[in-house]
Amino acid sequence: MELLKKKIIEDGRILEGNILKVDNFLNHQLDIGLLNEIGKEFKKIFSHKKITKILTAEVSGIAIAAIAAQYFDVPVVFAKKTESKNLDQETYEGSVYSYTKGKYYKIRVSKRYISKEDHILIIDDFLANGQAILGLKEVVDASGANLVAAGVVIEKGFQEGGKILREANLEVHALATIDAMVNGKVVFRNHEQY
Amino acid sequence: MELLKKKIIEDGRILEGNILKVDNFLNHQLDIGLLNEIGKEFKKIFSHKKITKILTAEVSGIAIAAIAAQYFDVPVVFAKKTESKNLDQETYEGSVYSYTKGKYYKIRVSKRYISKEDHILIIDDFLANGQAILGLKEVVDASGANLVAAGVVIEKGFQEGGKILREANLEVHALATIDAMVNGKVVFRNHEQY
Repeated sequence: MELLKKKIIEDGRILEGNILKVDNFLNHQLDIGLLNEIGKEFKKIFSHKKITKILTAEVSGIAIAAIAAQYFDVPVVFAKKTESKNLDQETYEGSVYSYTKGKYYKIRVSKRYISKEDHILIIDDFLANGQAILGLKEVVDASGANLVAAGVVIEKGFQEGGKILREANLEVHALATIDAMVNGKVVFRNHEQY
Repeated sequence: MELLKKKIIEDGRILEGNILKVDNFLNHQLDIGLLNEIGKEFKKIFSHKKITKILTAEVSGIAIAAIAAQYFDVPVVFAKKTESKNLDQETYEGSVYSYTKGKYYKIRVSKRYISKEDHILIIDDFLANGQAILGLKEVVDASGANLVAAGVVIEKGFQEGGKILREANLEVHALATIDAMVNGKVVFRNHEQY
């Protein structure tokens, strides 16, 4: 997606340790016009699929999923990371390994909001080590729903997440895939994922 | 907002301890059509105001703010609750008292994303004890930006938050104000807040 790549080049920042910061437009401040273009692009990619619900995980996936859902005309459900007294007792759970914290945490979705009749599209901001989407896949699998595909805004192609998910037979589409960050510059994969 | 009240009556659940659950459409599963109507209503209420940015706090405010921002044509910034190595070091902070946890926690916004030139509209899902919005107000005040008003989807009129905020000279509009929950039924305030 050219507009997204342009935005990453112009407004992304590369910090020490090959950390790409896109908090200018994607996960702290939100560029709503760009999010709409992202939503349209996901709809274009998945237009031939039957989708009844979009699933994401708090926090960074929520705005992207909500804006995109307008083009699919389906509800969004976001998995909760935090233990909350407000969450239903009956939940589908997934485990997400956090490399920064060196441990697993749980994500949960109330059993009320996914059923085996659903056809689920997962949407998230980043695909890096793939742990968040693996956790969401676990939630969907536990519910018996059909996991249609996953759409991510940015894939870090130099990390193993995409490979792991695709080897698990999940269809994954990224709007921009980064193959490397060299001398403070982002190198995109030329070949689009779709 | 009649559509919202209807939705609360039909799809809200009242649990023991006067807890109103709206996770069917507002803060776990998201009814995107309703969120669009909510966004339009906020725009109608604040149409005469100069607004350059919408501010909310993670997690439940994000989808509402993102959808509403489409009608204002401004970016959204969401304050972060969690310490994150990805957050800039230079932040504006606010304190939020959590009654459930019995302690204060911090919310933070990078100094890059609010400036004294901004005219800020705060948007959130619930107004109950007012703590979240007070924390956001602290962030805005620290930045020197102009805090225009706050729009909340549901105000619990039987808690003190609305009074505290209005006494602090903040203009607050709620799309539905609940005055009581009696025998498992919601009693709305007849008098709209605007």
